[in-house]
This record gives sequence, C-alpha cells and structure tokens, in this order.
Amino acid sequence: MAFLNDNYLKLKAGYLFPEIGRRVKVFCEANPEAAQRLIRCGIGDVTEPLPPAVIAALHKAVDEMGARETFKGYGPEQGYEWLRAAIAKNDFRDRGLDVADDEIFVSDGSKCDCGSILDILGGENKIAISDPVYPVYVDTNVMAGHTGEANEAGAYGKIVYLPCRPSNGFIPEPPKRHVDVIYLCSPNNPTGAAATRPQLEAWVKYALEHKAIILFDAAYEAYISDPALPHSIYEIPGARECAIEFRSFSKNGGFTGTRCAFTVVPKSLTAQTKTGETKPLHPLWARRMTTKFNGVSYIVQRAAEALYSAEGKAQVHALIEHYLGNAAVLRTGAKKAGLKVFGGVNAPYIWVKTPKDLTSWQAFDKILSEANVVITPGSGFGSKGEGYFRISAFNSRTNAEEVARRLQALKWWASPETG
Amino acid sequence: MAFLNDNYLKLKAGYLFPEIGRRVKVFCEANPEAAQRLIRCGIGDVTEPLPPAVIAALHKAVDEMGARETFKGYGPEQGYEWLRAAIAKNDFRDRGLDVADDEIFVSDGSKCDCGSILDILGGENKIAISDPVYPVYVDTNVMAGHTGEANEAGAYGKIVYLPCRPSNGFIPEPPKRHVDVIYLCSPNNPTGAAATRPQLEAWVKYALEHKAIILFDAAYEAYISDPALPHSIYEIPGARECAIEFRSFSKNGGFTGTRCAFTVVPKSLTAQTKTGETKPLHPLWARRMTTKFNGVSYIVQRAAEALYSAEGKAQVHALIEHYLGNAAVLRTGAKKAGLKVFGGVNAPYIWVKTPKDLTSWQAFDKILSEANVVITPGSGFGSKGEGYFRISAFNSRTNAEEVARRLQALKWWASPETG
Repeated sequence: MAFLNDNYLKLKAGYLFPEIGRRVKVFCEANPEAAQRLIRCGIGDVTEPLPPAVIAALHKAVDEMGARETFKGYGPEQGYEWLRAAIAKNDFRDRGLDVADDEIFVSDGSKCDCGSILDILGGENKIAISDPVYPVYVDTNVMAGHTGEANEAGAYGKIVYLPCRPSNGFIPEPPKRHVDVIYLCSPNNPTGAAATRPQLEAWVKYALEHKAIILFDAAYEAYISDPALPHSIYEIPGARECAIEFRSFSKNGGFTGTRCAFTVVPKSLTAQTKTGETKPLHPLWARRMTTKFNGVSYIVQRAAEALYSAEGKAQVHALIEHYLGNAAVLRTGAKKAGLKVFGGVNAPYIWVKTPKDLTSWQAFDKILSEANVVITPGSGFGSKGEGYFRISAFNSRTNAEEVARRLQALKWWASPETG
Repeated sequence: MAFLNDNYLKLKAGYLFPEIGRRVKVFCEANPEAAQRLIRCGIGDVTEPLPPAVIAALHKAVDEMGARETFKGYGPEQGYEWLRAAIAKNDFRDRGLDVADDEIFVSDGSKCDCGSILDILGGENKIAISDPVYPVYVDTNVMAGHTGEANEAGAYGKIVYLPCRPSNGFIPEPPKRHVDVIYLCSPNNPTGAAATRPQLEAWVKYALEHKAIILFDAAYEAYISDPALPHSIYEIPGARECAIEFRSFSKNGGFTGTRCAFTVVPKSLTAQTKTGETKPLHPLWARRMTTKFNGVSYIVQRAAEALYSAEGKAQVHALIEHYLGNAAVLRTGAKKAGLKVFGGVNAPYIWVKTPKDLTSWQAFDKILSEANVVITPGSGFGSKGEGYFRISAFNSRTNAEEVARRLQALKWWASPETG
C-alpha cells in the first residue's frame, strides 16, 4: 500500500487563517445582525484596488494575449528578463546594492517561495525560527520532516525558537548555539517590529561565522518609514555570502489576489554536500524553478513591471501612506483604550498585549463577539505569541477609525466587574 | 555549515527544454540567415491567441481589480468555489463521473502539481514511471531523494521504468512486481499514444490489488478524437479509490503563458502511515495547498471560468481542431518522407523513429541545421525514448505545412551517400 507523508500528521490544527475564517463564519451565521457591522482586521490582506498604472498594464497585456502576433506562451520559468531587470535595478542597484538580474527569481508568491526553498536544502540542517512569526516557516519545516512532535504550547521538537519579546524589541538575538538555517522576517509579521542595522549586522556576523544561511523575508519592506532602518539584508556587508531574500508585490502593489513575488539568490551563496563539498545554491534554485514551476502569468508580470514606472511608484507610495495612516489611527486608538501596543510604525501591523491575561483566542472570540472586529490571535504565530493579538491596518480609513472607536468603547479590561 | 539537498546533484544535464533553448540559441547566433526561417516544433507550446471569451473575461476581471467595491485580495488557496464548481460539473459530472466541487484543487500549472504531489507521499514508496514520458515525473522524484544515481542511459536506480514501445502501442502494461505509485500520462507526452479503456481498467485493477496510487496526467485530454477512448481515469470503476488526476488549461484554452490547471483528489483515496494506519489523502493535499500556495490570480481564474461558457467551449473546440489539423498534416508529411510515425491522432504530438539509427540528439542537430526545424529529442523523455524524436503540432497551419514540406525535401535517410 502506498505511504503518505507522516510528517503532515504532526501539524497542529488548521493553518491559522482558515481557522479564523471558520470561526468568523460560525459567528456570522449565528449573529446575522452583528455580521452586518463586522470589520475584518484579521488576515493581512489589502483592501484598496490595484494602482491605475497596473490596471492599464493589465489591459494592454490582455490585448496582447488576444492577438497571434503578440501572444505569449510559456515564458522563462524564472521570470521575463525585463521584469528581473526592473526589479534588480530599482529595488537593489539603484540603492547601491550589488544584485544581478539573474539573481532574481520571479514567482507567484512569497508563501510559495518560503516553502519551496526547503526543496534545495538538506534535511540535516538545524533550523532556527523567530517566535512569533509567519506560521508558514514552521509548518513547512514540519511537513518536510525537519522537526519532532509539537508540545502543548504548539512548539515543535528540534526547531530552535528565537523568542521575540518586548525586552528585545521583538527582534531576536543570534543564539549561543550553532544553527544552520535562520528565518528572519523584517518588518516582522505579526509584531510589526523592524530590525535595525546593528541587529542585522549581528545576524550576518553570526551566519558567516557559522556558515549558516539566513532566509530573510522582507515582504513588508515598503512600510519602513524610519530612514535609518535597512530595507534589504544585502545592505549588510557579507550578506551576499549568507542570505536569501524574499520579496513580494502583495503588500506594496496590492497583489494579494494578483499573485507575484520574487526571491533573491546571490551567486556567491554556498552550502555543503553530505561529504563536505561546498557548492553554490543558485544553480539548485534555478533547477528547482525550471523543473517544478512554469513561470508567472505573462499579464501578471507586466502588471508587476508597471509598479516600477514613475506613475506606478507614486501610486504605490500613496497606497503605503494610506495603510500606514490607518496603522497610526489604530495605534493611537488602542493606546487610548488602555491597551499595551507595539509595532504599526514601520509595518502595517499593530501588536497588542491581551488584557486581563486572556489567551489570544479568548481575546479573539471576545473582540469578535463584543466589538464585531476580527483580529488575529497571537498564539497562531508561535507559542511566544500567546497573550498577544495582531490588528491589521489593511482597511479603509473609515474602518480603521471605527475599529479605534470600538476598542475605546469596549474597555472591559479597565473595569474589573465586567472583565 | 548549512547543507544543500544532495539529491539535486544526481540530476543529469539541464532540464530538457532549457537545453533545447540553449542549442537553438547557439545555432541561431552562428547562422543568422537560417535563424530567419527557423520553425519551432520543439517545446509543446501553443501558438494561437487566447479565445475571445477569455479575453473578454480577463478585461472584465481587470476592471474589477481597479475598483474598491469589486477588488479581490487573497482568494481561497484551493480556488474560487465558482471555478471549482464549473470544472467539476463540466469536466466530470456532466459526463456521468462522480467528482465533487471540493475534490477540485485549482493551481497555477500541472507541472507544479505533478511535482508538489510528492510532498504528501512518503519516501518509502516504490515508484513506477512510464518511459518515455514528460521528464518532470522522474526529475521531481530524483530531487525528493526517491531514486539512486543515474546510469549512462539516464535511467535512475530504484525507479521502476515502464517501457513504452511500438509493441504495446506505447502504453505500458502493469508490471509483474509490486509498486506503490504509478505515473501514467494519457494522451501521452511525448508519444501521442492514448490509453484505451481496457488498458486503464488493467491499471485500476492492479492499483486496487496493490493498494497503489495512480498519478494520472490528462493534460492532453481535449485532443482525444476517438470516441471510444476514456478522457478521465474516473471513467474506470474503482479509480476514485486509487487515482489522482492532473488537468490543465494550457493545451485546451492555450493557457501556457496564462497559468491555470487543476488536480482532482477524491475523498475516497487513502494511503498508509508508517505504522500501517489508513488515512485519506484529501486533507493532506488541502493542507499542502493552504500552507505552501496562495491561490491562482483572480483574473486568471475568471479566464479559466470563461472556457466553460458556451462561447468558450466552441472557441476551445476550434483551437483543438486547428492543432489536430496540423498534426494530420505533419503525420502525412513525415510518412511521405519515409519516416516511421506514431501518435498525432489523439494528441498534438507526432512521435518519429530516427532514421539511420541516429541518436535523438543527432537527429535534433541534423534537422535543426538542415531543415531549420526545432524538434524534441526523444531521449530527453527517458532512456526508452532514445532513437525517436517528437514533432509538436502547436503551430500555425502554414508552418505545419512548411515543416511537412521540408521533411520531404530532406530525405537524407533515403539516400545512403548523404546519410
């Protein structure tokens, strides 16, 4: 009889966001009136339409697909050269960073890339993952058999968790022990914390000393408003020898439903074989992408290219300003409500301590039923996220203001008799 | 130091199609005049524009993405319900086949799905693969560590190859020995052979007896012109208990550059854990897709939906007729040229015996330099493909006719002095 992959059976509950969806559905069916005033600040999903420059590029590309002379079939699996060039130039070389066009691999999403990157790495690696963080890093390592079983708090054996706490500004320090692969996410999902240059320098130093690889998820790079903060791991000397960077158009161009992202694999990045030989990873990732992927839709690649036009850049800037404006409104509102608030300055996420020692899911259920607002339970991002929740700033300004008002109206955490 | 996945180092040469691209590029740069008259029948890539119904649906969906009220962010990872419903109804239930909407998983390509399916299967499985066949099945098993090293003919240890020869009509019989996972592709890429009902019945019988899983790639289903041939493995009783089916919009709707496909995982399909417990695979695939994939672009899903409208169906039918017409022209031309020809009736591929005992790559180079036609060397599809080449019917009629003419003009295989 055929065997299944037993590692999947180690996974705890559903993936976070489907579980939120399920609870919201149950609540709305039971409370149709409350459902009418529901505001979703749960899944970190954009709400504003695609920028006009993107819409124009999409229409043009669609027309090309409708005529034999301009029709496009299979493209290069790693992305069209014009898009790789636009990315490498605008996001890296124009900022003084040494990244070649063919070190850019265009994909249909950072979620896919963060999972797929394990394909080219060995099963022997000691894996370190920030906690709390985007759950895909842990879950894909569980699926790949890199972990033991989960304990009651949801922490898996063999993984080295890097705790993110108020005391370290939610950016983990390098561990004392040796690890081979390190997941960092900055600006961080869910805490909204962004790593400083010295913090990233410490990580690159560690990685070079340990010949470890940093998997640097910079999906929220566009939200960095503090000019002193690095936007890319490649701003740190030595990172080309130890880091892979994931970027996405989901949260800058609003491509969550359009699907385009990219991964940077420097040609100078190496890893070892079982017999201790050193080899570059770039050809392995190229082989992975040409064999297990068939490129991003042509029309979507044209849409991504439009984000780098003058109009596109201005329109993306306005989108970011909008969401960061929401974040400021939510931060202020939550603070006024007496909540302990982090993040929301260099990221579209507000990270909030649950009041009254509620668990994250208790806070989720209570805020859903009493304020009719969907937030994200912090425990869904790792055991160190327990006792926190995340509020997403992806919304209309009206909704952000309304959520700020409702949080202040609730205030059960200030009154012991209703707490 | 971080470890890489050593299995990648077992892979022989580049993936077939990039290697073809490389050789063609070298030839064209050295022979700019010949490059002018080059006709590509190599990669199985469509050439005709997207159907008008699809273009209209794309424009409409793009407009939706440009307005806040109709904008779509993250969709369900498994595909929108309306698309899953359209697929399940039109491709299966309307043909009397029992497939539920939520057994359809929409993806960005069959290549991705054929590779990703290994994520949910155990490493202990004995794998059987048709030979010759689409190289992705073998390569992804090599990458996943399911094979030994390759021998000189390119055959990997541990894989059970199922030889496809003229004597079995290029459809393999079930092996005498036990295997756990079987890759079948019908209509077959590259041979153009389509399995008959008795042939598929024999496979389903084998799979049920051995509790094996059939991975059935039906990407070319739309090209079946013989009404006696099954279009889906689920036409065979018992297949819901032993088969996963891959389908694609690449070759019917012309979506090779648009990217949409789907996989059918019946809820009644099971596999075993290491400890011998039986579990359904459907929840594992659902978990895989929700955790490692973020859904297909909304606009592309609307495009796929349009293929099921009355206009869409008629336009797809016309496309298939066009390519099958090319196939007939190429078949006839190659036969008249004195070549030994297979396929091209229920598939868009002509499978040709190389003349004069040339190797496949020798024939490739010779036909490229003498006829300026790009074909695909059969050895790229497996060691049993050596001594054959594939001609793709994806082209304009003019080009198909010109290729037929050029093959007849060559005829060096008939004249010993120039052979």
